[in-house]
Amino acid sequence: MHDVGTPTRLVGLSGSLRKASYSRATLLGIRNNLPAAVKLEICDLQLPLYNEDKDGADTPDDVRRFRNAIAASDGVVIVTPEYNHGIPGVLKNALDWASRPYGKSVLIDKPILVISVSPAFTGGVRAQAQVNETLLSIPAHLMAGPQIVLGGIAAKTKDGMLDQAFLGFTLEALDRLVAMSRVASRAARV
Amino acid sequence: MHDVGTPTRLVGLSGSLRKASYSRATLLGIRNNLPAAVKLEICDLQLPLYNEDKDGADTPDDVRRFRNAIAASDGVVIVTPEYNHGIPGVLKNALDWASRPYGKSVLIDKPILVISVSPAFTGGVRAQAQVNETLLSIPAHLMAGPQIVLGGIAAKTKDGMLDQAFLGFTLEALDRLVAMSRVASRAARV
Amino acid sequence: MHDVGTPTRLVGLSGSLRKASYSRATLLGIRNNLPAAVKLEICDLQLPLYNEDKDGADTPDDVRRFRNAIAASDGVVIVTPEYNHGIPGVLKNALDWASRPYGKSVLIDKPILVISVSPAFTGGVRAQAQVNETLLSIPAHLMAGPQIVLGGIAAKTKDGMLDQAFLGFTLEALDRLVAMSRVASRAARV
Amino acid sequence: MHDVGTPTRLVGLSGSLRKASYSRATLLGIRNNLPAAVKLEICDLQLPLYNEDKDGADTPDDVRRFRNAIAASDGVVIVTPEYNHGIPGVLKNALDWASRPYGKSVLIDKPILVISVSPAFTGGVRAQAQVNETLLSIPAHLMAGPQIVLGGIAAKTKDGMLDQAFLGFTLEALDRLVAMSRVASRAARV
Repeated sequence: MHDVGTPTRLVGLSGSLRKASYSRATLLGIRNNLPAAVKLEICDLQLPLYNEDKDGADTPDDVRRFRNAIAASDGVVIVTPEYNHGIPGVLKNALDWASRPYGKSVLIDKPILVISVSPAFTGGVRAQAQVNETLLSIPAHLMAGPQIVLGGIAAKTKDGMLDQAFLGFTLEALDRLVAMSRVASRAARV
Repeated sequence: MHDVGTPTRLVGLSGSLRKASYSRATLLGIRNNLPAAVKLEICDLQLPLYNEDKDGADTPDDVRRFRNAIAASDGVVIVTPEYNHGIPGVLKNALDWASRPYGKSVLIDKPILVISVSPAFTGGVRAQAQVNETLLSIPAHLMAGPQIVLGGIAAKTKDGMLDQAFLGFTLEALDRLVAMSRVASRAARV
Repeated sequence: MHDVGTPTRLVGLSGSLRKASYSRATLLGIRNNLPAAVKLEICDLQLPLYNEDKDGADTPDDVRRFRNAIAASDGVVIVTPEYNHGIPGVLKNALDWASRPYGKSVLIDKPILVISVSPAFTGGVRAQAQVNETLLSIPAHLMAGPQIVLGGIAAKTKDGMLDQAFLGFTLEALDRLVAMSRVASRAARV
Repeated sequence: MHDVGTPTRLVGLSGSLRKASYSRATLLGIRNNLPAAVKLEICDLQLPLYNEDKDGADTPDDVRRFRNAIAASDGVVIVTPEYNHGIPGVLKNALDWASRPYGKSVLIDKPILVISVSPAFTGGVRAQAQVNETLLSIPAHLMAGPQIVLGGIAAKTKDGMLDQAFLGFTLEALDRLVAMSRVASRAARV
């Protein structure tokens, strides 16, 4: 039985900062098709570059807000393109900030769904593999189940949003993420 | 026969922005031990986050300078730590900028030596593998030869610089990089 | 409360076939230090090379036995060296067999602990990253928690067995594997 | 000026042992479309599993033949599928044999073209990335240039052979491999 009345709060991260980015379009498509009890807040990854010298008493406000958003969430949805056969610097930089302080990262045990998208047919799977290994190192709680890879994404997007017709697998994965988020959040409250 | 009189100009990239970073210390140690005819300029990777919307007529000046420094060089030395089992966001972000415009990257065919360093014994080899795959995708001209991995780097550094005692393999690799840079530069001039 | 009386049965896979292999020595060291209620059976990876044409009515007996051993177990411990910066062919071949039939693999949801060992200081982490990504693809249930990496393994081995002094982290990870195995097995029985 | 009269001898490796494998079909398609002066011999990867104990005075004959075929060749073409998000065990096992003896591998400096194929749209790029990192570790001489990735390979194959219509990029890459092989072979003869 779910905690009726307590909405599940998810945070969405887009690996691309481009305004019309397909990653962002995918997050918008997801948000538009979530059940009422699930909220998705899209986080801005426009953060300073990671610098250990700047992480302590004077951690940038943007970074604090970013970490707090993840900490307050029940789970995270990462949608990322692949840049030069790997994770975009933008996304890795955000994960580098989120991974600290060492041993106290807000990502530890956080349920996470990773989706890669690409205008190319290869679908960004190398980026996804790198994100996986980084999340395992923290360790976050990677969603099991069939990986979500959206190749040829341009044709699957309409009006700046992933077309509902291509959301099937993604929404099933979201269901699993929400279920796991609820378990994780209940465990944290006990 | 080398072009006596024409110095070889290398550019050095440090994957960490920390002031006392071991990557930077390694570059300083290298610079201090180069033959007179080889110059190493250390480039700052404090660049904006990559955003395709900002890359065109209004490409940031820092990015233009960064690309020009690579273009004007005979070869590149990348020294990088490993963050969360992968390439630092800082370095990937710089490579993402350098990789563009697509098909005209200043990294294409550029001779590059990659070195990973780490206070941990594992030496940052996963970061190095990710850098390799990204450079192959462009494609830059990756130096062949034994990979340079410096684990336990803290004990190998003195006065903010990689100790000469641990520079042996690195300087041999540098020799190969310089030799290849000269071939590449001569070819480009023909 | 644990099912007292029902022992936990683990299966151990060594990524190296060498008689005196450090991977095998690590499994022997683990087996020697397990609580009485936990049994570890070391499986032989001396299997034919994977060939889809041979997998069906006439699947080799060795492969059937290997799959059955995993199916009957509560969890799997993989200990592997790194060969040429990656997973040994021996281990990948075994995982390729175990991954089939597609969608019905005995590895699906199976709790798995991965350990890499190496005479080199780098500890085989690239092999471990490749094993992780392969297990996620099936998907098996990868153990969360600090990754177990044993570099400089020669000096940690005595009389063909990982020395107890270096087993600390490994046995803690084993504890977590056993706990998860029990949850998984109970769930499967329901 | 090429050594007219001296044919270029390439060796082809298929990452799949399946009789009707798409990797083999790709090699057959290539062989059928080579210039007269270039010969491609397809090598069988049906080798024993790598075992260091068996590599010395009593190295298996199959392995000796395999190593000799590579040694006698001017370059190697690897065509591989992706198994479970990585390199097939079959291919990695062959590369593990070929990589030895350490420092004397027949792959050192050998020009190599890597092609990944897949019935899936993702095209096997994770397998290709793993092959690349392994070849760099030896180091072999990886072909630079646009990577060759053939997704949706089933529709591109006719009569057990890659259709000529899809061979364009591949034959261009082969041209570069042949050119490099000639340079390498001439250098070796000097």
